[in-house]
Amino acid sequence: MFPNKKVQKLVGSKIQVEMKGNLHLLEGTLKSADDYLNLHLVDTVEISEGEKLRSLGSVVLRGNNIILVTPLE
Amino acid sequence: MFPNKKVQKLVGSKIQVEMKGNLHLLEGTLKSADDYLNLHLVDTVEISEGEKLRSLGSVVLRGNNIILVTPLE
Amino acid sequence: MFPNKKVQKLVGSKIQVEMKGNLHLLEGTLKSADDYLNLHLVDTVEISEGEKLRSLGSVVLRGNNIILVTPLE
Amino acid sequence: MFPNKKVQKLVGSKIQVEMKGNLHLLEGTLKSADDYLNLHLVDTVEISEGEKLRSLGSVVLRGNNIILVTPLE
Amino acid sequence: MFPNKKVQKLVGSKIQVEMKGNLHLLEGTLKSADDYLNLHLVDTVEISEGEKLRSLGSVVLRGNNIILVTPLE
Amino acid sequence: MFPNKKVQKLVGSKIQVEMKGNLHLLEGTLKSADDYLNLHLVDTVEISEGEKLRSLGSVVLRGNNIILVTPLE
Repeated sequence: MFPNKKVQKLVGSKIQVEMKGNLHLLEGTLKSADDYLNLHLVDTVEISEGEKLRSLGSVVLRGNNIILVTPLE
Repeated sequence: MFPNKKVQKLVGSKIQVEMKGNLHLLEGTLKSADDYLNLHLVDTVEISEGEKLRSLGSVVLRGNNIILVTPLE
Repeated sequence: MFPNKKVQKLVGSKIQVEMKGNLHLLEGTLKSADDYLNLHLVDTVEISEGEKLRSLGSVVLRGNNIILVTPLE
Repeated sequence: MFPNKKVQKLVGSKIQVEMKGNLHLLEGTLKSADDYLNLHLVDTVEISEGEKLRSLGSVVLRGNNIILVTPLE
Repeated sequence: MFPNKKVQKLVGSKIQVEMKGNLHLLEGTLKSADDYLNLHLVDTVEISEGEKLRSLGSVVLRGNNIILVTPLE
Repeated sequence: MFPNKKVQKLVGSKIQVEMKGNLHLLEGTLKSADDYLNLHLVDTVEISEGEKLRSLGSVVLRGNNIILVTPLE
């Protein structure tokens, strides 16, 4: 299964995303993902060193600025 | 609904955008958005730590330099 | 009107451009713009904190390295 | 053999990946790779100066943020 | 004339290029340019604050990492 | 000859590559190159200020993260 399909299979579950820029890790529930890895997350929180920094709610992330996506057990 | 369509549904409402580069958060009313997440905002202001830094008015943002788009309630 | 068309409508007027990299703000007259937001500016000057730093004359800017385009009244 | 095919031939073996952003080196077993060099790794660990920093498990890496892929003997 | 055609018209003349990354300004004679603004320069030198730092000779520059191209009178 | 063809003509010879990210200069023998400037190098070494830092062996480099390619005499 190609990497983008692997991400699309995670729709409905919680994921962790590392972005470029000044954001720390984001955690949220994946609502949708396209083939460019653009992601729509809900109930998103920003995490730093295991602590919740901010609630971001519903966010759309631009695929080319995503470094890494990992499922949360 | 794919992430870019989710953004296009926000046309007419206020959004917050985090960009790459030295800009802080931008807030404005979304006038248009294409499939690459290029955005046209009006009444745009730059925000830092909850404070308004600058008024930017009408701006076009290049989609690939957008980190995150979030609706403002 | 899509964001790239909004920029193309600014051909002939003065615009301000924020780029990635070490450049400060650029101001110039937009000569041409394509759908990727590659821009050709003339009479371009680099601005820092309201002061003119350098005259750059005729420049071509790569669209993917543009953060923000805004019309100058 | 083109570079993306060279990477696809590494499916099933251990590779090392250097990413943009704040991550150190990643090492893991390559599960899949597409033509954009999007990668799915399993048993992924983050490495710094020869030391294991963190276990990341199953991760998807966005191709355009990959600097370098190298096979591990 | 679109911005990439403007650059292609500079084939044979001296140009200055600002790149992303740690390089300073590059100056050289443009040998070829494609529609992505990938450039082949010859007799290239790296410049910092008006001083020649290094001779680089024949170089190929990746278009997406070019910030700005300007003709040298 | 377009810039990507110029690079493809270097297959079999030694080249120097400057990448984005924390890597220093890379030197190696070019095994293959596609139109996106994705490169496969063998016998690759990382160089800093004329000194060999590390041997990297066989590496694949993502084209969009390449700043500059130059042939080594």
